[in-house]
Amino acid sequence: MKQSIKLYEVADLVGGEVVGDRDVIITGVAGIKEAQKGDITFLSNTKYLPFLHHTQASAVITSKDISSKEKTLVRTDNPSRAFTKVISLFIPPPHLSRTVGVHPTAIIDKNVHLGEGVSIGPHTVIEENSSIGDRTVIESHTFIGRDCRIGKDVLLNPRVTVLQGTEIRDRVVIHSGTVIGSDGFGYETINGEHIKIPHIGSVLIEEDVEIGSNVCVDRGRFKKTWIQKGTKIDNLVQIAHNVVIGPHCLVVSQAGIAGSTELGKNVVIAAQAGLIGHLTLGDDSIVGAGAGVIKSVPSKSVVLGSPAKPIAEQKKLFAFIARLPELFKEFNELKKRLQSSHPSDASKG
Amino acid sequence: MKQSIKLYEVADLVGGEVVGDRDVIITGVAGIKEAQKGDITFLSNTKYLPFLHHTQASAVITSKDISSKEKTLVRTDNPSRAFTKVISLFIPPPHLSRTVGVHPTAIIDKNVHLGEGVSIGPHTVIEENSSIGDRTVIESHTFIGRDCRIGKDVLLNPRVTVLQGTEIRDRVVIHSGTVIGSDGFGYETINGEHIKIPHIGSVLIEEDVEIGSNVCVDRGRFKKTWIQKGTKIDNLVQIAHNVVIGPHCLVVSQAGIAGSTELGKNVVIAAQAGLIGHLTLGDDSIVGAGAGVIKSVPSKSVVLGSPAKPIAEQKKLFAFIARLPELFKEFNELKKRLQSSHPSDASKG
Amino acid sequence: MKQSIKLYEVADLVGGEVVGDRDVIITGVAGIKEAQKGDITFLSNTKYLPFLHHTQASAVITSKDISSKEKTLVRTDNPSRAFTKVISLFIPPPHLSRTVGVHPTAIIDKNVHLGEGVSIGPHTVIEENSSIGDRTVIESHTFIGRDCRIGKDVLLNPRVTVLQGTEIRDRVVIHSGTVIGSDGFGYETINGEHIKIPHIGSVLIEEDVEIGSNVCVDRGRFKKTWIQKGTKIDNLVQIAHNVVIGPHCLVVSQAGIAGSTELGKNVVIAAQAGLIGHLTLGDDSIVGAGAGVIKSVPSKSVVLGSPAKPIAEQKKLFAFIARLPELFKEFNELKKRLQSSHPSDASKG
Repeated sequence: MKQSIKLYEVADLVGGEVVGDRDVIITGVAGIKEAQKGDITFLSNTKYLPFLHHTQASAVITSKDISSKEKTLVRTDNPSRAFTKVISLFIPPPHLSRTVGVHPTAIIDKNVHLGEGVSIGPHTVIEENSSIGDRTVIESHTFIGRDCRIGKDVLLNPRVTVLQGTEIRDRVVIHSGTVIGSDGFGYETINGEHIKIPHIGSVLIEEDVEIGSNVCVDRGRFKKTWIQKGTKIDNLVQIAHNVVIGPHCLVVSQAGIAGSTELGKNVVIAAQAGLIGHLTLGDDSIVGAGAGVIKSVPSKSVVLGSPAKPIAEQKKLFAFIARLPELFKEFNELKKRLQSSHPSDASKG
Repeated sequence: MKQSIKLYEVADLVGGEVVGDRDVIITGVAGIKEAQKGDITFLSNTKYLPFLHHTQASAVITSKDISSKEKTLVRTDNPSRAFTKVISLFIPPPHLSRTVGVHPTAIIDKNVHLGEGVSIGPHTVIEENSSIGDRTVIESHTFIGRDCRIGKDVLLNPRVTVLQGTEIRDRVVIHSGTVIGSDGFGYETINGEHIKIPHIGSVLIEEDVEIGSNVCVDRGRFKKTWIQKGTKIDNLVQIAHNVVIGPHCLVVSQAGIAGSTELGKNVVIAAQAGLIGHLTLGDDSIVGAGAGVIKSVPSKSVVLGSPAKPIAEQKKLFAFIARLPELFKEFNELKKRLQSSHPSDASKG
Repeated sequence: MKQSIKLYEVADLVGGEVVGDRDVIITGVAGIKEAQKGDITFLSNTKYLPFLHHTQASAVITSKDISSKEKTLVRTDNPSRAFTKVISLFIPPPHLSRTVGVHPTAIIDKNVHLGEGVSIGPHTVIEENSSIGDRTVIESHTFIGRDCRIGKDVLLNPRVTVLQGTEIRDRVVIHSGTVIGSDGFGYETINGEHIKIPHIGSVLIEEDVEIGSNVCVDRGRFKKTWIQKGTKIDNLVQIAHNVVIGPHCLVVSQAGIAGSTELGKNVVIAAQAGLIGHLTLGDDSIVGAGAGVIKSVPSKSVVLGSPAKPIAEQKKLFAFIARLPELFKEFNELKKRLQSSHPSDASKG
């Protein structure tokens, strides 16, 4: 990791242009409000523009339309992306410092294949016939059941549970407390008793997926529950049996997706939304926070509310609901007025 | 486990009748869409009827009213139940392969009673004065506090937490990440500070209950939080202190039940529903997905929405809300028409 | 722990007045419905007044306005608080019995500082450069990453995960399955792919905070996610990156708080409520159960519903919605009446 770097080297790294002293020494990174002398920071949201003049940072990465009389800038097309690159110079990824190798307290079945440069933390358990790809990091207290295939450069944080027969592909990241492959919630009710339906399917998690903390992904009943490449899932999300989530989706915290529902690509499910089972959500569709989705959603559409409706329609309904007190008042006034101007009507009621 | 079986043997097992070649060799089980030659599958939902003609399965278990010119059938009263029986011929239950015994890395207090044929996985901890029934399987990384009684044929998956004084009866299954017996959320607020109320009650989980992953069941304040026999609970559910859940209920994922609420028998709480505390839900009542229940629910009734109302009433309200734009429009037209036909009214307003 | 105590000693302890036999022997504590001979119980909620006459308890702690012909009472200003004191005489706190010391299966880096009288359970992992304060209890299967500072008299229940750089101050209690300091859900979407934004901030949990089971508290992007002193958080709650929760707040189960939202002091977030990001909730504000909050909330106000509105307004809207069937009916009747009394209008429509 770098101890210090000159500003023009930062500019070269991110393809930016220095406005001010090219030789300023940069020794760290921080947010615009917290930055101190020596730090570089960034400004991508114009909401934070007022902080540009007050920041203690030695340099600020900005978009190309920003100028400042007092501050040294690095102007780029995408300040946020540029800053992310700079961070990687100074801050180790959380697990880079870990010694490569297998901790002596890990319990690894003799029929497990470990790739090159694998790291296995203390008190981890890996059962028979599983394989772990090159450079994968498996943190402490993690459980990997039998017949699992874990790809290369995967990161399983402490206390992840991966149950038998799961396939996890390259560069997947899973956070602590998450459970992959527990039985789906499926029972057959016979004379008032719920008889368990065996779940003999599995889970497939494709390349570059990230899954947050304390998430549940159930195994399929017969076929697989399937999370496709590049999708990102936040904390405390429920993914039921046989769900298919297309590539590059975002599923925000505490959302729940019931059995066999299928999402296309680039779908966004906002926080605490719930989708019933057996639905289809088209590519690029968006489900608003807290929505209750009970019908399939076409591509590129946005739904909101419970039961969920297209956003324009739902916002109109919210507005009309807010005007109900006024409507009731006006209606009652109208009735009164009509009664006084047509008193004979009263007897007809 | 079977490698292959003749179809008439399957029919005998499930009490069904073969229509077609009784001697077809069956080598596996699969869903109707995924099945290949050699597999047996089933059809219980008429929605899947079109797949009957396309499936590659060598035989299909169906209800008695189904016929097919091309496919070999096994007709039974209940195809789903029959298929579940057949699965058990070919697919081992997840833990059947586990060696019986106690893993050397398990930490078991000397005052723990272990029944016959118990399996205890690696890195498990069982504290003093607890007992484990015959043939119970406790997977890796599980914690069982002191003074717990765990029944026979119980399955605790990896990474379950069972805190002190919990009683878990025969044939209960608990999935990974679930916490049984943590303190209820009870404080007394004195001068703006929240003083913890001790929770000295316990948790009782009766026979044949199944609890999903990352569920929380809090202990009672004085008495017990109580889940009665045959009830099934999905992932990420919250069961607060002193809750009583009657026999054979279903509580679907991410639902939450607040303190001291009591459910009768065969109650269904759908996903993401929330029940406030101190309610009573009658036998056979149903709470719809995402409902917010703030009043007790009578037996056999179905409630929906937030605040929850009887389903017929709530659906009517949803329909009227959807017609609000039309109502506002008509009302405004009516006002205008009345003003033009009774212009003198305008001055009265 | 006491085996028995005379009632006047109880009265002295809680500053109460005995009405009845001062020498009754008390041997235990229980709720008013469950109490048996020898137990002391309490009555603080007048809803339970009918139980006063039926309880088997040998004495009842009540408020000063209660009297009884049959029962021995201890009258105090605050029966609930008094009872909590009495409980502590008879019931050990859950972990008092634990042997002080470090279990031999705990993996503690040599550069970890352990205070006096620390207890570390089996299979716990503590990474480099962390410190643990005096008398802190860390239960089994807990993971503490590098560079963490854990205060004095902290209780981490079994299977807690505390990731690198977290600070936890004195007397904090964290329940099982909870994850502190996982990465926030932050991505930059470039050409339809989500690129992870590094989260280099941390988490600070101040004195006397209690956090329930299976909770997620994400680390800040640059600065810290911050839970201030005396706040209590229930099970399955989501606290996103950069959230600030003021002192003495209550956040009830399954609530979710999105990124950078800030709560003042003594705020209450009821169960299953959701707050979008970048909001401010004023001191003493209350968010109702299941509310969806999309705007900042002023001090001392109460909001309800989704989208959340001030409680008086929202309750009025709920009442008007419930009257929609009646409004539609009356409106249709009015239209008909007007058409029959002004038939010429029909042609104008």
